Amino acid sequence: MPDALTLAADLIRCPSVTPEEGGALVLLERVLTASGFACTRVDRNGTPNLFARIGPRGAARSFGFNGHTDVVPPGDPARWSADPFSGEIRGGMLWGRGAADMKSGVAAFVAAAVEVAPRLPADGAIVLTVTGDEEGDATDGTVALLDWMEEQGEAMSVCLVGEPTSVEQLCDTMKIGRRGSLTAHVTVTGVQGHSAYPERARNPVPALARLVDRLSSHQLDEGTKHFGPSTLAVVTMDTGNPASNVIPAETRATLNIRFNDLHTGASLEAWLREGAAKVATEFEVSVELTLRVSGEAFLTPPGLLSELVSRAVEAETGRRPAMSTTGGTSDARFVKAHCPVVELGLVGPTMHQVDERVEAAQVGDLSRVYQRVLEDYFA
Amino acid sequence: MPDALTLAADLIRCPSVTPEEGGALVLLERVLTASGFACTRVDRNGTPNLFARIGPRGAARSFGFNGHTDVVPPGDPARWSADPFSGEIRGGMLWGRGAADMKSGVAAFVAAAVEVAPRLPADGAIVLTVTGDEEGDATDGTVALLDWMEEQGEAMSVCLVGEPTSVEQLCDTMKIGRRGSLTAHVTVTGVQGHSAYPERARNPVPALARLVDRLSSHQLDEGTKHFGPSTLAVVTMDTGNPASNVIPAETRATLNIRFNDLHTGASLEAWLREGAAKVATEFEVSVELTLRVSGEAFLTPPGLLSELVSRAVEAETGRRPAMSTTGGTSDARFVKAHCPVVELGLVGPTMHQVDERVEAAQVGDLSRVYQRVLEDYFA
Ligand SMILES: [Zn+2]
Ligand SMILES: [Zn+2]
Repeated sequence: MPDALTLAADLIRCPSVTPEEGGALVLLERVLTASGFACTRVDRNGTPNLFARIGPRGAARSFGFNGHTDVVPPGDPARWSADPFSGEIRGGMLWGRGAADMKSGVAAFVAAAVEVAPRLPADGAIVLTVTGDEEGDATDGTVALLDWMEEQGEAMSVCLVGEPTSVEQLCDTMKIGRRGSLTAHVTVTGVQGHSAYPERARNPVPALARLVDRLSSHQLDEGTKHFGPSTLAVVTMDTGNPASNVIPAETRATLNIRFNDLHTGASLEAWLREGAAKVATEFEVSVELTLRVSGEAFLTPPGLLSELVSRAVEAETGRRPAMSTTGGTSDARFVKAHCPVVELGLVGPTMHQVDERVEAAQVGDLSRVYQRVLEDYFA
Repeated sequence: MPDALTLAADLIRCPSVTPEEGGALVLLERVLTASGFACTRVDRNGTPNLFARIGPRGAARSFGFNGHTDVVPPGDPARWSADPFSGEIRGGMLWGRGAADMKSGVAAFVAAAVEVAPRLPADGAIVLTVTGDEEGDATDGTVALLDWMEEQGEAMSVCLVGEPTSVEQLCDTMKIGRRGSLTAHVTVTGVQGHSAYPERARNPVPALARLVDRLSSHQLDEGTKHFGPSTLAVVTMDTGNPASNVIPAETRATLNIRFNDLHTGASLEAWLREGAAKVATEFEVSVELTLRVSGEAFLTPPGLLSELVSRAVEAETGRRPAMSTTGGTSDARFVKAHCPVVELGLVGPTMHQVDERVEAAQVGDLSRVYQRVLEDYFA
């Protein structure tokens, strides 16, 4: 078994840009199998996924780790200081696409699991779920693993997702929830005409402007105990009419809502449809909405799991992590339906950027935090 | 001298799609010169224009006609029932691009002028100004003719523009003015960001929506004695941002105002700039406006000229024309600065369309109306 840093560098060398497996899950399966884990590839619709367990199926205390080995594209390699797939260690940093998000996190929990496995109690198990599609649609990634586990009678009592949650110092921040995200496409249709005779047309543009103004002006809430205020951003309005003497028939907009636990996708949909219907009546136009909820808001309220993780962090680093719910979505939104889940990992700001990198020493440090979490959990 | 209908058909056979002269002005110059008119080509920056006068320069009574021989493109000839440049007379109709707008009108006033010319009083003159660019930018068309006339000491006491003003029956409508037209391009610039962190960005989209809603909701006026209410149409809003997780830096809109004689381009510009500045302050964004006034509103108040024309119409057709100020712009807006001007011509609804056509008999009828206008004017 390589140490966490070596395994992280080996994973970076696998070119696993979504949806390519790139050898990353194959490598993990080999390492875990050699250490006594029962491994199963749970691929679905071409998306590669790896399930691994040590200890009895359905163990009373089953600690889960979740992560992903796929990475976003590196962009132009010429803009990088290092080959984005070299896994080079230079100047105390581990460089490469996935160094932060999140091959090092996966390497850290794999190394910790391998370390603790020989000392598991009889009623204890460690379950690892690693997907090859978190950065893409994620429809056949962690969701496929969770579906398969349910079918097979596999389960996790709690789960830690190894995403890079830290802001400045290792483990300074853990995530106990995430805001939900809803995207709505609005299409307003009126009746085309000539600008000189607007009374014969029905212009959809002012109707959309009114709707966008109303939605943007509305304060959804003022935040909750663990969440900031929900936000709504209209990110585009488009008509594509080049002729100033023509009133167009149709215009469109897209908006994105990041919402806290006061809302659900369904409650926001109802609110949006009400606003759309009102404008449709006022302007005698048709307003169509297409919605996609990419994740509901969720929260694992501070409790046993967050306290377990906080104490392990404090023991290893001397500081307690802040509990945050900010940022985009992660696969924790899927895990949440099955067991309490928190996220804790490396310092993340270079993720998805050119020259993605982490402090090399922190990969082993993170692995030791994970190891202590496991030891405390099974103690 | 051919009759008006024959001359109209001959003109349609000249392929004078803007900016091509197509032989149309050459033909008119030949016909008018043969009838004793002094002709001058007043081309400017490649735009062909024809000036013709009979009677003394600076005559006390100088009756002007204005028109254009350029036409808009025919589009796909396969969609036409006849070759758009054949000038075919079939089923009692004269077919072809320019039949309505406005080669027949030009032919009608040329034939009328040629007819009346031998009987002009000593202090009378007929002045014809015909441009090859009314449908395009019109920057070097009628404006060039008027500039040149001023330099040369040429003048018109009154002017009749032969645009197709009639709605259903020949000469049922004359235009005594036109609304002004202003087009404004609005660009709102904020600060780009991520949809998950709107507080770090400054979204220009809601600012534009607010501005568009306010401008669209404002009633500019309720109309005047001779004009309908001014109208404002926002014809497009465009951002072009494909990413729902990105707040864009910039968004744009275009609006068109058709305004009556209660406004000027300058007064509307001041109003628009005030609205833009208010939104810029409210949303802390920058709002840029680019404006183009393609014509100010103008009116030749009902009086001697409109009465002269109305009586001639009544004598020839048995009905008095309605006095209208609706529709788009025409070169009358340029003539207005020099002398009283009205517009009267054929039945226009097929103009700029496939199968443009007019009733063949009405070309001669219109020419007789013009002839009577001249005779009454010089009586
Ligand atoms: Zn990630
Ligand atoms: Zn015209």
